Amino acid sequence: MKPTIKDVAREAGVSLGTVSKVINNKYVKELTKIKVDEAIKKLNYEPDIYARGLRKNKTDTIAIIIPTVWNPFISEFVYKSEKILSRMGKKLLLCNSDGNSKKEVEYINMVKQNKVDGIIAITYSDIDKYVNTNIPFVSIDRFFSKEVNYVMSDNYEGGKIAARSLFESGCRSLISVGVKSDRKSSTMDRKEGFIHECKKLNVEYKSFEFCDEHRNLGSFLEKIIIENYIENKKIDGIFACNDILAHRIIEKLHKFNINIPDDIQIIGYDGSRMSEEISEGISTIRQNVDLLAKESVKLLLNNINGDKSSHSIVLPVEFISGYTTKKI
Amino acid sequence: MKPTIKDVAREAGVSLGTVSKVINNKYVKELTKIKVDEAIKKLNYEPDIYARGLRKNKTDTIAIIIPTVWNPFISEFVYKSEKILSRMGKKLLLCNSDGNSKKEVEYINMVKQNKVDGIIAITYSDIDKYVNTNIPFVSIDRFFSKEVNYVMSDNYEGGKIAARSLFESGCRSLISVGVKSDRKSSTMDRKEGFIHECKKLNVEYKSFEFCDEHRNLGSFLEKIIIENYIENKKIDGIFACNDILAHRIIEKLHKFNINIPDDIQIIGYDGSRMSEEISEGISTIRQNVDLLAKESVKLLLNNINGDKSSHSIVLPVEFISGYTTKKI
Repeated sequence: MKPTIKDVAREAGVSLGTVSKVINNKYVKELTKIKVDEAIKKLNYEPDIYARGLRKNKTDTIAIIIPTVWNPFISEFVYKSEKILSRMGKKLLLCNSDGNSKKEVEYINMVKQNKVDGIIAITYSDIDKYVNTNIPFVSIDRFFSKEVNYVMSDNYEGGKIAARSLFESGCRSLISVGVKSDRKSSTMDRKEGFIHECKKLNVEYKSFEFCDEHRNLGSFLEKIIIENYIENKKIDGIFACNDILAHRIIEKLHKFNINIPDDIQIIGYDGSRMSEEISEGISTIRQNVDLLAKESVKLLLNNINGDKSSHSIVLPVEFISGYTTKKI
Repeated sequence: MKPTIKDVAREAGVSLGTVSKVINNKYVKELTKIKVDEAIKKLNYEPDIYARGLRKNKTDTIAIIIPTVWNPFISEFVYKSEKILSRMGKKLLLCNSDGNSKKEVEYINMVKQNKVDGIIAITYSDIDKYVNTNIPFVSIDRFFSKEVNYVMSDNYEGGKIAARSLFESGCRSLISVGVKSDRKSSTMDRKEGFIHECKKLNVEYKSFEFCDEHRNLGSFLEKIIIENYIENKKIDGIFACNDILAHRIIEKLHKFNINIPDDIQIIGYDGSRMSEEISEGISTIRQNVDLLAKESVKLLLNNINGDKSSHSIVLPVEFISGYTTKKI
C-alpha cells in the first residue's frame, strides 16, 4: 500500500502540519526538516498534489528537460517556450540531460518536492516508472502512456511528404537514414511513412539505421555512400531522419565530391534554422516549433492548475525547399 | 544616504529579525511579508549580502541572461555552463531577454530577493545602474565598471587575426562589416584590430557598420556588395563581426551568384558550430567557449561565496579555416 502523509508524520514523530510545511517548503526547524525528509525517503512517500487539490505553494517555475540545447531545433523550441512562459510570469529551469536518466529523475523529484511546478521534456531515456499522472508533465515527441500528456509532430506524414518531395524533384532511387531506437520512436514513424510512400509511388528504396554496433556514425555514413553510390551509381535521393544527420551526410558527400543536388538530393527533418535571422538552409520537413511550444506550455499549465485529463496533440508538418533539392 | 535594514524595520513597524526573515525567504505571516515588502520598495532598500557575510539561504540556482538561446554560439555557451553548474549541484534559470532591459532587471531583482544566487549575463542593454558590487554578477563580452566581473575574448587580437588570415589567403582589398553600438563594444574592438592590421599590412580596407537609420540589414548588405563588388570589382575579402552576420552576407553573395571563396573570401567571428556533432562550417575567429563557460562559472561561484574582489579575464581566440577562405 502507498504510504500516506500520516505514515510519514508517525515515522518522523511530528504532526501532520509539520510534514505539510516541509512538503510545501515552508519554514520549520532544520532538525525537524531532516527528520521529515528522512521519513519521506525511508517510506518512499510521494505527496499526491491532486489529492491535496490545487497546490498552494506554486513556484512559478517550469523545468525543461532536453538532451542538449546546443542544437538549432531544440534551442528554437526552448527560446519560444521561455518567451511564452515569461509572458505568463513563469521562469524556466534548463536541464541538458544528454540522455542521463539520473539527471532527468532529479528534476522529476523537484516537482515532487515542490521546487518546480512541472516539466516539459524531450527525453528518450528509460524513465517511464518516474513519469506518472501524479506530476504535471508534458512529453514532446515521445509517447509514455495514455495518462501522460504528449505533443508531437505528425512524423508518419512527414516521412511520406519527404519521399513524395524527392520523387517530385526527379529522384527514382531513394534511401532513408535513421538512428535505431529500442522503443517505438518518432524516427521509426518517419521511416515507416517514407517506406509507405515509396511503395505507393513504386520507387526503389532502402533504409539504413545507425545502432551501437556500428560504433562510428561517420564511417557508417561513408560505407552507405560508397556501397550505394560510388561503387554503383544507384541512389539519387536521401531522406535523413533529422537535420543534424542530414548535415553529417552532406559533409560526407562533399568529402567524396558528390554534387548536391545534381548528383544526390537530400531532405532532412526538423526545419531548424541556425538562428532567427538566417533564412537559408537545407531542404527539410519542418516541424511547427511555434505551435509545439505553445501547445506544450498550454497543456502543462492546465495540468498544473488541476486539469487531470491527459491530452495527446499531433501537429502538422510541411516540406521546406532549400538548396539540397532541385527546384521544380 | 542608503537605507538600512533598521529603516525598513521602522517603516514596516516590525522587528529586525522579521525583516531578515522576509529577505531570506523564511516563513512569516503573509500580512507581515506584505508590510515588509512595501517598506523595502518605498525606501528602495537593497540588502547588502556581503555586509551580512555569506548568505545563509542559498538557492543553488544561477540565472543566465542572454539575448536569445536560438543562436549556435550562445546555445553552446549555455549548454556548457549548465553542464559545469550541474556537476556542482547548481540549477540554471534561463532568461532570453531579446535586449529587453525590463526583463533583465527582473532577474537582477531576483538576486536581491534571494530567489537566485547570482547572474551570468550576455547583455548590451542599458542596465548599468542595476549592476553593482552588491549582487554576484559576471558579464560576458561587456565591460560595465572596474567593480563588475567580466570574461571576454581578445576581440582586438581577433580582428587582427581576421585581417592577417584574409591577407595570407590572397586577399588585397578588404572590408569589415559590423553593427553599430552606442557604447564601446566587442564589435568595435574587433573592427579596430582589423583596421590596425590592414594598415600594418598596407592593404586597402573600408569598414561598414549597420545602424538604426539603415533600417533593413538585408538591403544594407546588398548595397555594400553592389557598390564594392558588382559595380567595380574591388573587394576580395570580407570580415564579418559575427558568424550570423557572415551567414547573412553569404546568403546575399549566393543571391548575386558571387563564388565563395573564388571571388570573395569571408571570415566570421564566434566559431559557433550548429551543434556538437557538426564539424563543417565557415572560416571564422573561434572564441574558446569551453573556457568562457568555465571561467564565468568559477568567477560567479567565488563571488557568491564571498569573494569581494572583481576580476577581468580576457581569453585568446584562434582562426578556424572553413569553406569560405582558400586553403593555403
